[in-house]
Amino acid sequence: MIVYCVEVQVVPGKEEDFKAASLKNHQETRKEPGNIRFDVLQQSEDKSRFFLYEAYSSQEAVIAHKETAHYLEWRETVAPWMAAPRKGTSHSVCAPLEPGQW
Amino acid sequence: MIVYCVEVQVVPGKEEDFKAASLKNHQETRKEPGNIRFDVLQQSEDKSRFFLYEAYSSQEAVIAHKETAHYLEWRETVAPWMAAPRKGTSHSVCAPLEPGQW
Repeated sequence: MIVYCVEVQVVPGKEEDFKAASLKNHQETRKEPGNIRFDVLQQSEDKSRFFLYEAYSSQEAVIAHKETAHYLEWRETVAPWMAAPRKGTSHSVCAPLEPGQW
Repeated sequence: MIVYCVEVQVVPGKEEDFKAASLKNHQETRKEPGNIRFDVLQQSEDKSRFFLYEAYSSQEAVIAHKETAHYLEWRETVAPWMAAPRKGTSHSVCAPLEPGQW
C-alpha cells in the first residue's frame, strides 16, 4: 500500500475552480479498483493551499491512476491555476495496518 | 471536521523507536470519541521523515486530544528524537463530505 501526498498552491481567485475540478477527480478516482482513499483538503490558514491524500493498493495502481482520463483531464484543467509546481511525496503505512481501517 | 497534518523528521537511528511510540499513540487516539483517523506514514524516499494524518470531529476534539495522557506521553517520549521542529497544519475537508467515507 502506498499513500501519495500532494501539496498544491493555486493562484488567488482560483480556489473554488480548483475545488470543483478536484471533487470531480475525487469521485472518479474512488471508482478505480486500486484506489483506497482520495481526500481533498484546504489549508485553514491559507485558503490558496490544498492537500491531496491519495491511498493506493500498489505502485501499479498509482501508475494506472495516472493513465486515467479523469486524472489527465484534472491535470490539464488545473495547470493554469498552479501558483507553484505541485509537490508529491510517497509514503508507506505504519498505522493503521488493518485493511478494514482504510 | 478538521484534518491536522504533522510533518516529522527524526534523528538517524531513531526511526523504529518513533514508529513504536507513534503506533501506541495511534491506538489510544483512535479510542477518543472525537478522533476520526490517525494515520502514521513513513516517507518512501527518506525513512527519517514521517507524516501524521489526524482527523477530528471538531476543534474541541483537537484540544481534548492534546490533553490526553497518551498524547502527552508520546510528546515527551519522541522529543529527544526530533531532528527538526514538527510542522503541523490544519485543514478543512473538501472531499469526501460523507461522514461514512471517514
